[in-house]
Amino acid sequence: MTYTTPVRDMRFILDHAAGFSALEKTGAFPDLSDDLVAAVMEEMGKYCDQVVAPLNEESDRKGARLENGVVRTSPGFKEAYGQYVEGGWNSLAFPEAHGGQGLPSTLANALVDGLNGASMSFAIGTTLTTGAVKAILHAGTDEQKKLYLEKLVSGEWTGTMNLTEPQAGSDLSAVRTKAEPVGPDENGIERYKISGQKIYITYGDHDLTDNIIHLVLARLPDAPEGTAGISMFIVPKAHVNEDGSLATRNDVQCIKLEEKMGLHGSPTCVMAFGENGECYGTLLGEENKGLKNMFVMMNAARLDVGLQGVGIAERAFQRALAFAQERRQGRAPGVKTGDMIPIYEHADVRRMLLAMKALTEGARGVCYANAVAYDLARHGADENVRREAAALEGLLTPISKAWSTDRANDVASIGVQVHGGMGYIEETGAAQHMRDARIAAIYEGTNGIQAMDLVGRKLQGDGGAAANAFIALMAKEADLASAAKREDVAHCGRRLAEAVTALKTSTDALLGLARMDQEAVLAGAADYLKQFGNVAAGYYLTRGAVAAALLVNEDADGAGYYEAKIEVAKFFADRYLTEAVALTGAVTGGALPQIEPDLLSA
Amino acid sequence: MTYTTPVRDMRFILDHAAGFSALEKTGAFPDLSDDLVAAVMEEMGKYCDQVVAPLNEESDRKGARLENGVVRTSPGFKEAYGQYVEGGWNSLAFPEAHGGQGLPSTLANALVDGLNGASMSFAIGTTLTTGAVKAILHAGTDEQKKLYLEKLVSGEWTGTMNLTEPQAGSDLSAVRTKAEPVGPDENGIERYKISGQKIYITYGDHDLTDNIIHLVLARLPDAPEGTAGISMFIVPKAHVNEDGSLATRNDVQCIKLEEKMGLHGSPTCVMAFGENGECYGTLLGEENKGLKNMFVMMNAARLDVGLQGVGIAERAFQRALAFAQERRQGRAPGVKTGDMIPIYEHADVRRMLLAMKALTEGARGVCYANAVAYDLARHGADENVRREAAALEGLLTPISKAWSTDRANDVASIGVQVHGGMGYIEETGAAQHMRDARIAAIYEGTNGIQAMDLVGRKLQGDGGAAANAFIALMAKEADLASAAKREDVAHCGRRLAEAVTALKTSTDALLGLARMDQEAVLAGAADYLKQFGNVAAGYYLTRGAVAAALLVNEDADGAGYYEAKIEVAKFFADRYLTEAVALTGAVTGGALPQIEPDLLSA
Repeated sequence: MTYTTPVRDMRFILDHAAGFSALEKTGAFPDLSDDLVAAVMEEMGKYCDQVVAPLNEESDRKGARLENGVVRTSPGFKEAYGQYVEGGWNSLAFPEAHGGQGLPSTLANALVDGLNGASMSFAIGTTLTTGAVKAILHAGTDEQKKLYLEKLVSGEWTGTMNLTEPQAGSDLSAVRTKAEPVGPDENGIERYKISGQKIYITYGDHDLTDNIIHLVLARLPDAPEGTAGISMFIVPKAHVNEDGSLATRNDVQCIKLEEKMGLHGSPTCVMAFGENGECYGTLLGEENKGLKNMFVMMNAARLDVGLQGVGIAERAFQRALAFAQERRQGRAPGVKTGDMIPIYEHADVRRMLLAMKALTEGARGVCYANAVAYDLARHGADENVRREAAALEGLLTPISKAWSTDRANDVASIGVQVHGGMGYIEETGAAQHMRDARIAAIYEGTNGIQAMDLVGRKLQGDGGAAANAFIALMAKEADLASAAKREDVAHCGRRLAEAVTALKTSTDALLGLARMDQEAVLAGAADYLKQFGNVAAGYYLTRGAVAAALLVNEDADGAGYYEAKIEVAKFFADRYLTEAVALTGAVTGGALPQIEPDLLSA
Repeated sequence: MTYTTPVRDMRFILDHAAGFSALEKTGAFPDLSDDLVAAVMEEMGKYCDQVVAPLNEESDRKGARLENGVVRTSPGFKEAYGQYVEGGWNSLAFPEAHGGQGLPSTLANALVDGLNGASMSFAIGTTLTTGAVKAILHAGTDEQKKLYLEKLVSGEWTGTMNLTEPQAGSDLSAVRTKAEPVGPDENGIERYKISGQKIYITYGDHDLTDNIIHLVLARLPDAPEGTAGISMFIVPKAHVNEDGSLATRNDVQCIKLEEKMGLHGSPTCVMAFGENGECYGTLLGEENKGLKNMFVMMNAARLDVGLQGVGIAERAFQRALAFAQERRQGRAPGVKTGDMIPIYEHADVRRMLLAMKALTEGARGVCYANAVAYDLARHGADENVRREAAALEGLLTPISKAWSTDRANDVASIGVQVHGGMGYIEETGAAQHMRDARIAAIYEGTNGIQAMDLVGRKLQGDGGAAANAFIALMAKEADLASAAKREDVAHCGRRLAEAVTALKTSTDALLGLARMDQEAVLAGAADYLKQFGNVAAGYYLTRGAVAAALLVNEDADGAGYYEAKIEVAKFFADRYLTEAVALTGAVTGGALPQIEPDLLSA
């Protein structure tokens, strides 16, 4: 087995760090129970481990390819996707009214974690479908919902997000793709002729399903300039008849696949809309309000990208851990003769593995807490709970996305290092994780843009209310842990308290600068996000450690497992909560000089 | 131009941070002068920029390949290597007695920096030749020197290091390759029959030269177990006649090329010695003392690997900087309309570029100072100078190697990030630097092994004398800078002082643990190396800033350049000297638990 979905770890974090039990109490999920969660996650693990994980390495060597205008996916992907749909995995958290299973989104997020650990190339296609469902649920007409939702919910069809154009990457104000109204169809629905090219379209074409529903940003004639003139359109690969059957093929095609550093199993398409003047779509939501819908897709997708980071970090960790147990080199300090020992026994190798584990688990804590906040914000029993959860969700989303993926890059790179020379040889598999992981810090809004979102809309947007509320919560937990009887747990608590204080200092400093010097705020944004991520991850790990200290006594059989949770939290505290303390210096370093570029490399 | 050797920066660091002028004063280099250095470095820049740099991208796509038992290098490599030999670049710092130019090694190290910036795949072959020359100079017989040195010095032949075997990676005690004495040849020189396989042999075979001189670790019959039974042998690809002409082909061949994550232009060979029972070599140095010779090669090579990191970081930086000036996205904070601005003007992009620059320049400072110490240790005018320089060289070598390459990985990854989505597309070139750079933290002793060397032989070996002397030197510089009239320079000084204090705390703590708990020392080793590297790099940047503050007034035309030096030092101080302060927590975290691996991923 190359990968095992860490179901026990996932459940530990859900139950003891992320506050999943609050979802049962909302009453919004009548079927939800411990037994159900256990059953779902066990089946999920089987699917990920047995069906998807074995495809991952071959998909790197035999990536998606474009043949005569059609994208062929990697060996086994089509069959595995068939099982994904059949198993109901796509519909887990969608509304029952549209064929979904009505479970909390948090469980779908856990699936994103497990599925990306199994194969990121395979998994990321499904994230786009989730985004399309959410956008159509949010803004679709009854007719659009009827035509598209059921099959997107089941996964019989997939969805895409068509945003980027060569001149419009992070800045979508420059989108040029056109949409021209051409009058109503036979059912009285206004149709638009779409023309333009989009780049970096994940799973823009593939052979997994009969149809693909593209959500496309484009401009209507006479639309205002900039982002205020962008609308969103539903552009199916094949038009759909009233009865749900497929009609004619639309004028949409993949004209090129990008050659990427990794993720070879995931087709990254250049899409041409209307090359023959015959591409038609319908407006989704209001004219010129396309970005609003896009953010509905995007915000959920950002958490899912964070979870891609968690999944791939887990995979890299498991591979490195297995290698470190098998590979023998050297002996213990001072020992000159005898058999070589597994490298796991060397202090520096254990340090690397603990770093991988602590970062992975910390990121999982942040993302799962974010997921629970997402559900509570929508299903909390009272208004206060929903409002507080929404504030936490907003705050955590850029951190989940950026911190988890930055850390995934760290983890995957450490994984290569654990393998020594073998890590650099592709055959070993460690390098693939590093190459695959690298995109996650870039797409769905680069991590720099997440940092701007954090210090901008999320911090300054409410005058620091959400951030300060969360900081207060963490400070309380730090006090609680500091008072623990066990010295190791108390140590975590003290480290957390120092880090929370530093985060508070940074937060106050940025809020103080807000009215005076946005350049200084923005210069500190990325380091503030890193600091916030370290502290939040340390907080969830400390919560886990506090719980583990109780469970050690309750569950003698599991004592070793809970002791390990405390050790990992302590490792994190000594490495990353201490790092957080120092980051205030970087956050408050002030605006950055505009040095004449020629002077920088001479 | 895709790359420009940063000659001005190199000279600034040599002159104002690394203390290069001390070499002129030794009297050991009578021809050395400012004009000579200027002339050499200008020519070097031309060769690197015009001949080597243009080959780099194609060598990634058209890597070295094995055809009918012969390795073919990437397009243009053979011609560029011919010019390398012709230009005398290989012989720069070798003794005149053997055809070298007798210049300081430091200049050859600067060439390693420039050449790796131009093309790491091309450049790394030359580093192995340097190692072979040093080993033969150190331990060779007159006959061996006569047969091999001149053509290795000129570069007409290349050298290799054959250490690793599948079971013997970091731990060479497990080497199994055999050497059996078979009696003297016609000239009375004892010959040995060599048999075994070696892996990861860089430029183990290629078509650049007529001959390749392999230095091979192997065991004599009845040799003691472990590293005390390893000898070194000279095993030429083709035997060499007395008159220097080539005789018969030896029974050595490349039987496989590894498929690597990057560095495709550099052949990484599996070498078979004596597959037909006809591989012969001669003993280099004493029986069973092979590791001693190996460390002669290795120590010099470690600094050169650090410089590989510097070079590739520079290349990644230059590419990102150029991109950031061309690529337009978004507008300044608060501006809603008008043209999009170059992304260089966005605070977070400038932060990334300054981080790349500061880390590259900091690493260059450490490596160049290490290079000067290497030269002074051998050519210093008096015994005291030589002894102090040797201590500094020993201390800095693991830091140059590990810190520079870790930071090169950071820099190359940030370079991808600056490019956004394009960074992940191979066509852009940024990803290649990240893939290429990754090996440098692994080979020539993994960075974990460098950390063990630092806390072991380098720190505990002399009871902290070398470390404390260097710490005192840095503390003095911090005081000096803190007293500067310019607030920005004084700020650097204060940050340096705090970081030096933290490093001193860590150093004392590790020395205190030395007799009690080696596991705790080793658990802190990597973080100690990181801390030491941050502080040392900050020290050399601060020295540069102090010098720049004077030069600003002296040289009105260059004022912008010197101001930029101070800005970069300040950026480093706020980000990486503050980070250094926090690392004491990680260094002193104590021994790491041996958690049952099964409990770590469940």
